[in-house]
Amino acid sequence: MTTSDSQAANRVAGQPSGQPEAPAVGLDRIDLLRLLTAEQRAVVARQCRWRRFAADEQLIDHWAETRDVAFVVEGRVRVLSHSAGGREISFSDIEAGELVGEMSALDGRPRSASVVALGDGALVAFLPAKPFQALVTAHPELAMEMMLRLCDKLRGATDRIMELSTLGANNRIHAELLRLAKRGSRQGASAVIAPIPVHSDIAARVSTTRETVARVLSDLTRDGMLERRADALVVRDLSRLEMLVEDVRGGP
Amino acid sequence: MTTSDSQAANRVAGQPSGQPEAPAVGLDRIDLLRLLTAEQRAVVARQCRWRRFAADEQLIDHWAETRDVAFVVEGRVRVLSHSAGGREISFSDIEAGELVGEMSALDGRPRSASVVALGDGALVAFLPAKPFQALVTAHPELAMEMMLRLCDKLRGATDRIMELSTLGANNRIHAELLRLAKRGSRQGASAVIAPIPVHSDIAARVSTTRETVARVLSDLTRDGMLERRADALVVRDLSRLEMLVEDVRGGP
Repeated sequence: MTTSDSQAANRVAGQPSGQPEAPAVGLDRIDLLRLLTAEQRAVVARQCRWRRFAADEQLIDHWAETRDVAFVVEGRVRVLSHSAGGREISFSDIEAGELVGEMSALDGRPRSASVVALGDGALVAFLPAKPFQALVTAHPELAMEMMLRLCDKLRGATDRIMELSTLGANNRIHAELLRLAKRGSRQGASAVIAPIPVHSDIAARVSTTRETVARVLSDLTRDGMLERRADALVVRDLSRLEMLVEDVRGGP
Repeated sequence: MTTSDSQAANRVAGQPSGQPEAPAVGLDRIDLLRLLTAEQRAVVARQCRWRRFAADEQLIDHWAETRDVAFVVEGRVRVLSHSAGGREISFSDIEAGELVGEMSALDGRPRSASVVALGDGALVAFLPAKPFQALVTAHPELAMEMMLRLCDKLRGATDRIMELSTLGANNRIHAELLRLAKRGSRQGASAVIAPIPVHSDIAARVSTTRETVARVLSDLTRDGMLERRADALVVRDLSRLEMLVEDVRGGP
């Protein structure tokens, strides 16, 4: 690859050719970097390689030797892996303003999963490992924020290990529905989940099959606990679902 | 509790009464704190509450409102949780020189698991959340080291989620045996695991029952892959076990 080829590959789609620089918005939307001044953010933005991704395109390949951290400036991305049989196991969806791929950038070890774009047009800024490490070392408040994010992920992973270790697929689907319902809007005793979650997404998040998800949701609908509207899934009695989950999960 | 009672409870067993101070060894053995000077370590040691624990005694209660980080100065401890039915799920064993309970100390949120002493005489120094946060904020190299430790735990958790999501109990036991064998000593094609691991410990680590572990180990012994000696378990052909695990797990 020649230098100009590589510049062309690095620039944001739609930018004038030969200008591998950041778009005007820069990294202002990245939550972690709000702790920096606008000038400091602009310096970081210029150290990044910027790229736009189409739906399902891979930002980070589980098996590639890359170590950059990826700032998701626009769009959404999904962290996932596959079983030997090809079943998708998803870890988390990362929204615009967040970052992903920080583990390999910090510890230099291989990628723990792949990351793909959800929907067209995700804009991602890749910062190489060395400047990322320099950044968290130079700013203690940024290092603390990174530790809090790692703790948050580790807590999520611990909860999932407990669910996988102690709950059957049915109850894991109930627990996932409860999480979605708590993030949804409330209407009296009900909670509205919109848009309607895709069965295969729920299956990948709780490590089961799409068919099992379809069966459990249909059982809940028959029992009157769930109602499918045109554009939303309604948990008709949130506290009843909560009890159903707490009963099998145990607690203090 | 009176002040002198509380001092008595806080002091190290065997120290003269009325002196709630650190033992001579202090925190010199704590790996993370090697990045500090001896003087800085001594300051931290004096901020700690020191206590010795008997076997199976709880250092950290999953449901208690404590937020201290615990430095394990002597002995070993185990991080674990229980299912609603009372089955033990273990997360990791922490050796002398390591720390545990750092998540709640950093993010102020509830404990994610309990921690119990393995064997008698574990000596633990508890540092409250505020001075621990001040410590990592004041020393960037210590913050980086904490990030690396959190990454390491998160990688372990991710691997376990993949195993729980994609492997049956039999194959998870094979994978755990492989991990133990790789840490053991080599004798030609064999690997020696000593002391012999307890079935219930393997069961708690891979989220299955003791009976399943007993059955799988006995199957492997009958097939000639495993040999039980008086004081060790021998994996007779490490590469064959490796292939067995890789076949079902998939990989690059």
